[in-house]
Amino acid sequence: MRPTRPLPGSLVQRYHGWKATTFADNAAWYRRLGAEGQRPRVMVISCCDSRVHVTSIFGAEQGEFFIHRNIANLVPPYEPDGLRHGTSAAIEYAVTSLRVSQIMVLGHSQCGGVEACDKMCMGHAPALEAQDSFVGRWMDMLRPGWEAVQTIEDDAERREALEKQAVLTSIDNLMTFPFVRAAVDAGDLVLHALWNDIVDGTLEGHDAVTDRFSQI
Amino acid sequence: MRPTRPLPGSLVQRYHGWKATTFADNAAWYRRLGAEGQRPRVMVISCCDSRVHVTSIFGAEQGEFFIHRNIANLVPPYEPDGLRHGTSAAIEYAVTSLRVSQIMVLGHSQCGGVEACDKMCMGHAPALEAQDSFVGRWMDMLRPGWEAVQTIEDDAERREALEKQAVLTSIDNLMTFPFVRAAVDAGDLVLHALWNDIVDGTLEGHDAVTDRFSQI
Amino acid sequence: MRPTRPLPGSLVQRYHGWKATTFADNAAWYRRLGAEGQRPRVMVISCCDSRVHVTSIFGAEQGEFFIHRNIANLVPPYEPDGLRHGTSAAIEYAVTSLRVSQIMVLGHSQCGGVEACDKMCMGHAPALEAQDSFVGRWMDMLRPGWEAVQTIEDDAERREALEKQAVLTSIDNLMTFPFVRAAVDAGDLVLHALWNDIVDGTLEGHDAVTDRFSQI
Amino acid sequence: MRPTRPLPGSLVQRYHGWKATTFADNAAWYRRLGAEGQRPRVMVISCCDSRVHVTSIFGAEQGEFFIHRNIANLVPPYEPDGLRHGTSAAIEYAVTSLRVSQIMVLGHSQCGGVEACDKMCMGHAPALEAQDSFVGRWMDMLRPGWEAVQTIEDDAERREALEKQAVLTSIDNLMTFPFVRAAVDAGDLVLHALWNDIVDGTLEGHDAVTDRFSQI
Repeated sequence: MRPTRPLPGSLVQRYHGWKATTFADNAAWYRRLGAEGQRPRVMVISCCDSRVHVTSIFGAEQGEFFIHRNIANLVPPYEPDGLRHGTSAAIEYAVTSLRVSQIMVLGHSQCGGVEACDKMCMGHAPALEAQDSFVGRWMDMLRPGWEAVQTIEDDAERREALEKQAVLTSIDNLMTFPFVRAAVDAGDLVLHALWNDIVDGTLEGHDAVTDRFSQI
Repeated sequence: MRPTRPLPGSLVQRYHGWKATTFADNAAWYRRLGAEGQRPRVMVISCCDSRVHVTSIFGAEQGEFFIHRNIANLVPPYEPDGLRHGTSAAIEYAVTSLRVSQIMVLGHSQCGGVEACDKMCMGHAPALEAQDSFVGRWMDMLRPGWEAVQTIEDDAERREALEKQAVLTSIDNLMTFPFVRAAVDAGDLVLHALWNDIVDGTLEGHDAVTDRFSQI
Repeated sequence: MRPTRPLPGSLVQRYHGWKATTFADNAAWYRRLGAEGQRPRVMVISCCDSRVHVTSIFGAEQGEFFIHRNIANLVPPYEPDGLRHGTSAAIEYAVTSLRVSQIMVLGHSQCGGVEACDKMCMGHAPALEAQDSFVGRWMDMLRPGWEAVQTIEDDAERREALEKQAVLTSIDNLMTFPFVRAAVDAGDLVLHALWNDIVDGTLEGHDAVTDRFSQI
Repeated sequence: MRPTRPLPGSLVQRYHGWKATTFADNAAWYRRLGAEGQRPRVMVISCCDSRVHVTSIFGAEQGEFFIHRNIANLVPPYEPDGLRHGTSAAIEYAVTSLRVSQIMVLGHSQCGGVEACDKMCMGHAPALEAQDSFVGRWMDMLRPGWEAVQTIEDDAERREALEKQAVLTSIDNLMTFPFVRAAVDAGDLVLHALWNDIVDGTLEGHDAVTDRFSQI
């Protein structure tokens, strides 16, 4: 027997509240989205962190943003080896099937995945170095990024720099996907690198010319 | 030079609107979440589809839901092989670091990933069978699920059944993770299997006793 | 020879500024909208008044709002008499070809067209009563609305009430179009009646139950 | 009971965002515009199409452009027959009450109204020929324009030529309004004929001497 359980009453109640209000107010639009399919303008790659709500920040409508969320908003490099690659599958679907016009990689402050990576690279987290640590092996992707910032002594500063390295690593890896590069080169796809301070609400964007992040 | 571009003005404007209203209204809470860290009650595994907004359906507060989104809300089986597993990393982090009390797998109607899987299994989508098809290799996980529903002749019915198989596959694979099974057995973690009809707003939950989905 | 003239340099300069910035930042999206066609969610019927910018108020993206603007945001009744009806053509195109999910009628304060109607109905504007007054004949549509508010003595109050009557007249006339009524009855189309105070930025919405406008 | 419904929450949220930022930043100017009335320099006649944002293209301020939008940016000829003429009312108000200095007719590529006219004139759209087709009867205005371009065999080229004919038809019809002609002759009013390619952002203006459009 599968060990599933009914939803707690408080969530059931919220769902019914949503259905009677938000859903009812948008029913005509949802029906049309269901019938005609989605046509999102933007793919967002952001973190699973419960404190980052990209739909809220950008006032997104249903149907507007195709959203992949993983630990530390990381994109792995292109590896067509026949194995499972969930992030790569999401990118492939967004770019080649949905043909989104923008990909937004959204990093954020106080990122637990980045903090774990930092501790691991400092040699302070042996458990993360075990072969069976999924978080450790996932965050290995950010080791080169850590090397770029390791000389920063202050923990908070180094981690913020590493959070931004995570975003840039994803941008760089995105460009290793042939279909991403082709769409960018053809002017059909634009990439945005962003970092959100969850404490003070600031949003910073990467400037290609200066290669730095600055406040939007 | 990295090929990033500034955000379009309309999104910048919406962000500033959010910061002046939603963010300002919640600043004290966000500051505390930043200082004390997140403590989400629920992990949600849902699809990237732009028409599924789990935070909206459940009226989620910032800090409440830890959300992983991938194509077709699939969880792969436990494979501690030292390779990168983004979904497994998210589950490990949620269960062992954040110690969430619930995992909600949320499938939905009109799922493009499930439709792709159906076509592939029917032999109608050779491109998805290529080794370098990330979507195809990702959806291979659902081949056993397809076999369970393949006798349903009506396309729409079979796909809805397959969408629910995707949810159950994820539940079954979740239970192959030792730390998930241990937490479930200890009563520290509860699993929910859900399916949302994006057209009429219906939410169905899996009932362990009958092994069927029914309307909530 | 047609009496057209080149654009003044200041507008040419602004256009080139837009092309180098806003257009460039959105070029991928505009190309896609051009190739795939528009799929707006909302039709907006608002006034020509230079002080009402509906795209700004609602942070609308290119491709999101189909906008008809005329004097006093008026919809005439359904009259399939084979003559030219510009507003009716816009509504027909939006509802039957584009199949928008919402129609928003947006009235506003200090409306010159409504003020003209008020003066005409008070007998203070004989020029507007002439057969060849296009504004007068257009505003005749609002005469029944004026009768409903004529007992309000204060000019400013009566005009505000008349501005809201203009919105409700449009809603009532919209429902005389068979394809509008059918779409509303089928749940495929939703109507919104709104009034914007251009001085203090307030937005009021019509409440079907109380039949009154209240602040949003 | 009137069938109006509340605005969806996402639009309400965007409105509040606008009010707290754009509106707040311009409140003094809006208050003055409210108190003193509008004094727009330009009347714009453009299409309802959701992909054409004239305020964005020309960086228009609140109070600067008086904007009429209809299907295919068409101006009918002067017909003071005592019937309702929405476009004529807007022109009359702009020229005789507001005394704008410029009228800009802005056509655009991929125009659905022009495409409908083209199909109708080719005999491929019988539904548009029915007496009760508002779009058909509205586009009848462009039949003479279609005759001028009918020998162009390539569909895309013929439609672009027809889009420009729509602009010129409007210019020619504008000149049949006595108050427009008088203002033009007196040097108080200037007419501009423009066409915007929504895909590549190009803007073309009509040159009176060569009677052709060329890139601005």
